[in-house]
Amino acid sequence: MPRALNPPTSVRRLCQGILSSDRSLLAKAITLTESTLAADRRKSEQLLKRLMPFTGQSIRIGISGVPGVGKSTFIEAFGEVLTRAGKKVGVLTVDPSSQKTKGSILGDKTRMERLSRNPQVFIRPSPSSLALGGVTYHTREAILLCEAAGFDVILIETVGVGQSETHVRSMVDFFLLLMLAGAGDELQGIKKGIMEMVDGVAINKAEGENQKASQMAKADVLNALHLQPTTLAGWPPRVLTISAREHIGIEGVWKMILEYQHHAVSGGYFEENRKLQNKQWLEESVERYFRVFMNGPKALRQKEQLLKKVMNQSLLPTEAGRLLWNELMKG
Amino acid sequence: MPRALNPPTSVRRLCQGILSSDRSLLAKAITLTESTLAADRRKSEQLLKRLMPFTGQSIRIGISGVPGVGKSTFIEAFGEVLTRAGKKVGVLTVDPSSQKTKGSILGDKTRMERLSRNPQVFIRPSPSSLALGGVTYHTREAILLCEAAGFDVILIETVGVGQSETHVRSMVDFFLLLMLAGAGDELQGIKKGIMEMVDGVAINKAEGENQKASQMAKADVLNALHLQPTTLAGWPPRVLTISAREHIGIEGVWKMILEYQHHAVSGGYFEENRKLQNKQWLEESVERYFRVFMNGPKALRQKEQLLKKVMNQSLLPTEAGRLLWNELMKG
Repeated sequence: MPRALNPPTSVRRLCQGILSSDRSLLAKAITLTESTLAADRRKSEQLLKRLMPFTGQSIRIGISGVPGVGKSTFIEAFGEVLTRAGKKVGVLTVDPSSQKTKGSILGDKTRMERLSRNPQVFIRPSPSSLALGGVTYHTREAILLCEAAGFDVILIETVGVGQSETHVRSMVDFFLLLMLAGAGDELQGIKKGIMEMVDGVAINKAEGENQKASQMAKADVLNALHLQPTTLAGWPPRVLTISAREHIGIEGVWKMILEYQHHAVSGGYFEENRKLQNKQWLEESVERYFRVFMNGPKALRQKEQLLKKVMNQSLLPTEAGRLLWNELMKG
Repeated sequence: MPRALNPPTSVRRLCQGILSSDRSLLAKAITLTESTLAADRRKSEQLLKRLMPFTGQSIRIGISGVPGVGKSTFIEAFGEVLTRAGKKVGVLTVDPSSQKTKGSILGDKTRMERLSRNPQVFIRPSPSSLALGGVTYHTREAILLCEAAGFDVILIETVGVGQSETHVRSMVDFFLLLMLAGAGDELQGIKKGIMEMVDGVAINKAEGENQKASQMAKADVLNALHLQPTTLAGWPPRVLTISAREHIGIEGVWKMILEYQHHAVSGGYFEENRKLQNKQWLEESVERYFRVFMNGPKALRQKEQLLKKVMNQSLLPTEAGRLLWNELMKG
């Protein structure tokens, strides 16, 4: 648990610690960004501001897929490939399901046991509170902190259900979807919207008797992808077959991502995309201030009073909305 | 096209016209509520305020289903049953697909040709602009206007794709889903979330050779519904087989809805639900003011300036968000 830190020293200490790759201070800084206290928000803003010149140098990779597709096993194998290539790897998880288990610090470390012991790797599980899209909001800040701490590759893992993958897409350079073979039905399980945001697909568990089916699934996915309009990056998404458990094809995934990076950087899209993502971040940030404000004591009190009048029909809901908005803008 | 109306007289005229069931003034009033001009918004608020004592007396029914399920044919047949029972029927459509066709005034009237000629029926197609959830926002106001004009039954039609049915659910008393027979696959096509908000399901096209399959589909849907927790109303959703084209089972739908109404009114849920819906409306209304404000010239100008600094990396997106929010709250 992070202790209360004396503001001026702590920001400096955190800053120095992160720049010297101190993992425990990095973890503390990420916890600070997750705090909803106004004072902590200011501190984390100061910290991020100081670290900004040292950010942006990593490649940010989103990894998604339905439960059971083998995401942890893949990240273990992929992390090994990356660290063997001399990379420092940060792993952030954006897992809506962990809401129920109230955070999974031990869970995630157990899931990726070998990787978590690797000194070149930093694993950060998702926080337990997911209020108001907070996780992904904080994940952006965690990415910057990891970059300042010298991590070259940031993996952001999310479960391919619900809205989380759209959010993750809005903060990564490359979006990888893990899938399983098993003919049409499984493919249909993936929402169409997800296929439209992938840069690459890896059909996992392409091992033993499953190899043939995986090749067929690959062809199916390629077909589906060909029907889509080309991405803004002008990159036709690729499909690979892999076996994370048997370490087959994992280097190929890294090669694909490096080729994508080369393609996107030389075409100018890489920078363009990051700028667009910053714009989105700004907009989400203002919205967040609005929501925090609306859930603050003052706004809640005013809303409660207006609601009474709405309930006894002496005020229209729209009218109450206008009055509340005007009140808020006045104060 | 509605002309500009002189404010003080027009609100009175609109008010009188609606209370005397003048359909052309009702249509004008609905158009007024759809306007984004501040002056029009104020006028429509005044109008709704005056009419409020005359609202709330109808039963509001949401009708959803995938394209091709036969929604228009059903509404034609259902409208006939209702008008024969002496009811005045308002039909409002919330159709996200009409965004492409730029409104479908003729389209909707052609779709429900016979019904549109019935003097006891008022059909209002969805407006062409769907910015920021505006349609459903205005649909709530259109419901109140129709009620003040004396319509007893309001049908709100929506296509069962995307988010629109959740919005429609939040403004109706009874939510009816139309489905088609054809075994498991079709049922899976319906998102699970939709099944959790239905009060009744009608399997359409249960005619001729399709009767047996429709009975089987009915059993399947009932099974699926039984696995769900009971609704807040304590009403187990019912499943009927109908043929809108051959006018089979349509009276049964109306009977089911009346029984639901009796159940929900006597249990107190009917009023409770409407109060909750008003609370939701208030909250959406404040959010709408925020969004309108954020897209106003002042906010856009300030955002543009901050974005430049974000783009050249002299400002963090979160920091820019905070500065923008503070600026906005000041002015």
